[in-house]
Amino acid sequence: MILSNRELFFYINNNLTNNDLKFTEKIGYGGDKTLNIDLIAEKIFIKYLEVFGNIYSEECGRLSSNKKFDVVIDPLDGSDNFSSNLAYYGTSIALVYKEEILAGFVCNLANGVLTYKAFDEKVKFEFFLESRNPLLVSNDKKFGIFERAYAYPKICTELRHQNIKFRSPGAVAISLCNARNYTFVLLAGNIREFDILASLYICNDLFLYKTDKFVLISKNKVLFNQIKEIIKE
Amino acid sequence: MILSNRELFFYINNNLTNNDLKFTEKIGYGGDKTLNIDLIAEKIFIKYLEVFGNIYSEECGRLSSNKKFDVVIDPLDGSDNFSSNLAYYGTSIALVYKEEILAGFVCNLANGVLTYKAFDEKVKFEFFLESRNPLLVSNDKKFGIFERAYAYPKICTELRHQNIKFRSPGAVAISLCNARNYTFVLLAGNIREFDILASLYICNDLFLYKTDKFVLISKNKVLFNQIKEIIKE
Repeated sequence: MILSNRELFFYINNNLTNNDLKFTEKIGYGGDKTLNIDLIAEKIFIKYLEVFGNIYSEECGRLSSNKKFDVVIDPLDGSDNFSSNLAYYGTSIALVYKEEILAGFVCNLANGVLTYKAFDEKVKFEFFLESRNPLLVSNDKKFGIFERAYAYPKICTELRHQNIKFRSPGAVAISLCNARNYTFVLLAGNIREFDILASLYICNDLFLYKTDKFVLISKNKVLFNQIKEIIKE
Repeated sequence: MILSNRELFFYINNNLTNNDLKFTEKIGYGGDKTLNIDLIAEKIFIKYLEVFGNIYSEECGRLSSNKKFDVVIDPLDGSDNFSSNLAYYGTSIALVYKEEILAGFVCNLANGVLTYKAFDEKVKFEFFLESRNPLLVSNDKKFGIFERAYAYPKICTELRHQNIKFRSPGAVAISLCNARNYTFVLLAGNIREFDILASLYICNDLFLYKTDKFVLISKNKVLFNQIKEIIKE
């Protein structure tokens, strides 16, 4: 998992071409238009990871089904950020056995920090560049994250009414895997397994509310219930 | 300008302590509560830059006034992102002569990319780590940026009504300096010179609308006028 992310990170930093940012003729299995870089990333992950299980990925869908484990991949989380050079995008990989997630790996490809958790151990980090201690987070949490806020102005209005501050940076897995750093993380709209499984496992000690339209995660039970009421309306 | 940003970047990546993320007793000149890291950053900038002109900075205010040039500094743009470890924060430095901006330097400290423009030359980049070509941006622009969207739900509602998509990542100078990569950048609320002067110079070839409540910048004249109408209401 680490090696595949590392290869992709260094590809992006050293070998990226203009052509990589162009659309292919394809629509990915997940329903989005496919960029060449999506396919390059997916190919790297398949090369390293198909030995571990059945690949199930955002672009190619399900590659096999006869192995014991599933490897659920979003090869490029935040593609639109990536192709606009907004430095907040990454990858998501979950290792799944039957319905149970065994491990989650989420890599921020903009700064080369891989966040992961496996087999119920604690959350760990891997740095592809100079060391940075990502555990340094102020106790005084300032804001939550509301991904795809632009499409839900009624929820924005109600959050404002209740004085709840948020960011909306645009890469679902990256935002969700760091949920413990924020007051909450809320995703709205089309929720796909590829985007969320790894992060949900990394944050499986927080409060979680999940429907087919929303994922809400928070450490703070009062705020969690407050936002749950808002999105239920 | 490059050396001072480089020193701060490597400090953050290698020497940051938990104490750096704590609040001082002070309120900065710009009106926000001051973190220790704000002061550390400011000290680095003063050390390198006071030789060039009168320092005018978010934390300390105006240090002198007898020099020919002014050096206008936001030592940590996106402080809340920084202290929550949301990897989107940086610095902003403008060199000013009388009322005229001569150069702007904006550094994304999360990935070590410094964007700058000086003396009417073209925009340049400096990389503190592995090379990345930040000029690789798809022609097909997908979204704008609306900083402090959470506080302006009426504008969110109207943008949605007109089908205008946005992100809200939370660091004003970083977002603004990359405006040419997005459909637009809109800042709302308390606009301070420290935050915007350097980026405005970097983007001085784009359409600009600026009041004491809003900064709007875009390459696309039709969209620019469309959003201008929304915020005027």
